Amino acid sequence: MYRLTVRDHMMIAHSLPHPAFGPAQQLHGATYVVELAIDRAELGEKGIVIDIGEATGLLRDALADLDYTNLDDHPELAGVLTTTETLARVVAERVAGRLPAGTYAGLEVTLREHPDAWATYSLPLS
Amino acid sequence: MYRLTVRDHMMIAHSLPHPAFGPAQQLHGATYVVELAIDRAELGEKGIVIDIGEATGLLRDALADLDYTNLDDHPELAGVLTTTETLARVVAERVAGRLPAGTYAGLEVTLREHPDAWATYSLPLS
Amino acid sequence: MYRLTVRDHMMIAHSLPHPAFGPAQQLHGATYVVELAIDRAELGEKGIVIDIGEATGLLRDALADLDYTNLDDHPELAGVLTTTETLARVVAERVAGRLPAGTYAGLEVTLREHPDAWATYSLPLS
Amino acid sequence: MYRLTVRDHMMIAHSLPHPAFGPAQQLHGATYVVELAIDRAELGEKGIVIDIGEATGLLRDALADLDYTNLDDHPELAGVLTTTETLARVVAERVAGRLPAGTYAGLEVTLREHPDAWATYSLPLS
Amino acid sequence: MYRLTVRDHMMIAHSLPHPAFGPAQQLHGATYVVELAIDRAELGEKGIVIDIGEATGLLRDALADLDYTNLDDHPELAGVLTTTETLARVVAERVAGRLPAGTYAGLEVTLREHPDAWATYSLPLS
Amino acid sequence: MYRLTVRDHMMIAHSLPHPAFGPAQQLHGATYVVELAIDRAELGEKGIVIDIGEATGLLRDALADLDYTNLDDHPELAGVLTTTETLARVVAERVAGRLPAGTYAGLEVTLREHPDAWATYSLPLS
Repeated sequence: MYRLTVRDHMMIAHSLPHPAFGPAQQLHGATYVVELAIDRAELGEKGIVIDIGEATGLLRDALADLDYTNLDDHPELAGVLTTTETLARVVAERVAGRLPAGTYAGLEVTLREHPDAWATYSLPLS
Repeated sequence: MYRLTVRDHMMIAHSLPHPAFGPAQQLHGATYVVELAIDRAELGEKGIVIDIGEATGLLRDALADLDYTNLDDHPELAGVLTTTETLARVVAERVAGRLPAGTYAGLEVTLREHPDAWATYSLPLS
Repeated sequence: MYRLTVRDHMMIAHSLPHPAFGPAQQLHGATYVVELAIDRAELGEKGIVIDIGEATGLLRDALADLDYTNLDDHPELAGVLTTTETLARVVAERVAGRLPAGTYAGLEVTLREHPDAWATYSLPLS
Repeated sequence: MYRLTVRDHMMIAHSLPHPAFGPAQQLHGATYVVELAIDRAELGEKGIVIDIGEATGLLRDALADLDYTNLDDHPELAGVLTTTETLARVVAERVAGRLPAGTYAGLEVTLREHPDAWATYSLPLS
Repeated sequence: MYRLTVRDHMMIAHSLPHPAFGPAQQLHGATYVVELAIDRAELGEKGIVIDIGEATGLLRDALADLDYTNLDDHPELAGVLTTTETLARVVAERVAGRLPAGTYAGLEVTLREHPDAWATYSLPLS
Repeated sequence: MYRLTVRDHMMIAHSLPHPAFGPAQQLHGATYVVELAIDRAELGEKGIVIDIGEATGLLRDALADLDYTNLDDHPELAGVLTTTETLARVVAERVAGRLPAGTYAGLEVTLREHPDAWATYSLPLS
């Protein structure tokens, strides 16, 4: 199995309005360093999983309307606790929806929120 | 599948008394940068795998009696070759023993001993 | 000359309301990974620049009322463009105000806002 | 399952002569930081997956005739598009060919070509 | 003193035709991760050393005709040993030539060629 | 001014027998990732500060009798508090003693003891 990973980042504000989150209930923010990994069983004629530029573009497109915003105001995320785990799934599903069917085995999105914590969402693709 | 990873470190002395280990048979030491990854199939109502503070606490508890010690003197490790692989398993089993049954799919512990070598132990949880 | 550096981080929301900042005029956020370096010409009897725990505490104290907040609402920062450079100076001056006179040669604070950009403020101490 | 990972690097020139690769069709180069991960279900009597020195030697041997060369001139790679994915497989297969049968569960090779892109090849070993 | 640093990279082929360089006399290559630091004594009204986007653009412009090329064929570098140190100076002088006089105190360019070696060139600006 | 930096590491045991060091008074250990930076005003005819292999060798030689040992038993360090700062100076002075006079402007040694703390010693060379 082959995997190609590309990296980008986004800088967002948000709050986590649930008593379990302590000070993170307040409006604060994060730089999320985002890694998108795409899996493929066999390489195509160009010897690649996916073009790095194309993968980078898919990731950028998935982050574009989140980057430099307050996630608390994003219509798609209304009522959602925008935890790192949840955002990893949102990014992964956005990318998956743009990939052609039948080529890729799966994808995995990791969001690093600070040097000592990160979350990953893995999505098998049939 | 979701994964939440947290990171801590410990600074230990030890020796590896087996001829295969060359100079590491002598008493020496290591900073182990330790990553604890916890897997879960679905998020709970708070949108998280596990609270980052709770995961960090579980990892710290698992390292506490090892950190700033000479592992050669630790009763639990008497007669054990405290290789990076073995310590990864010890940390993983300590954390696993503190997690509630039935919630998590597995965990993985990585110990980085220097920039060019690290070891991982993966433990499925039923 | 000796230098001791410790690292922490803070997760803040803010906006940069000046047309030069493009999308960063909007409310967004950042994880700032913060490094505090303290310089000293000669070591004391304990062979250290400053105790690592003490330096870590000084840095944490300097970040505490900023971490997990929206800097746009912070009284001390009212009317201030909270650029990375400016925040580096704020943190440095807070730490400097807590250090005893005559012992240290200077300090330097670096704030890393994402993998490809960071800012530093250097402050000589007489 | 246990995994031991070691890291090395190689500095190569190459070109990717297919229109899909844009400027990378030109002769250019890369520092590939290479990680070799070896998996094993149970540890042997020494408490290790494989000796770190031995794993490091296997990786170095797999890179030796590629390092400090122009891959376009390498006989084994004639007519091959030396993408990061393909090179990951070449390195993995070279290492696999040197490992004894029946001991290891698999291996994985990652080549990091720059801070924002890397490729991995996973090879199960029966 | 304030410093703003931005990071980019370039992927080049080259050779170092002098017996002192051993295997690096052969055509090989490198990913140079390049950091550009710009120093300024006081911040302007926007509270910045220089706009991050502008600094990133200056660095990209300085790398553009080197990236994805064989430096051995570059007219400006004919007869030059393109060591990491020399390339750091070339990049620094290109950036310095584009900066307005009288605003900045200096700049520093670091080229990282692999995880265990890097070179820096510092250029004071009057 | 030019600077060339190389990196190595050592894995040592030690204790810091002074009440100020808390748990570090116990025998414990560290992986010190060590960076050696050498400064030079002008490059020689080979376009380098110093050969990377030579610098790497100087650093390795300076670490060799410390690596894989218990520093508490080292004759040269008897009665010395082997803090990170002190070890940085020991390494720097060892390297300085091996460099020819009159060529280099200075050197700087950084020892990273864990991801959140490191120490540096700078030594001007006339």
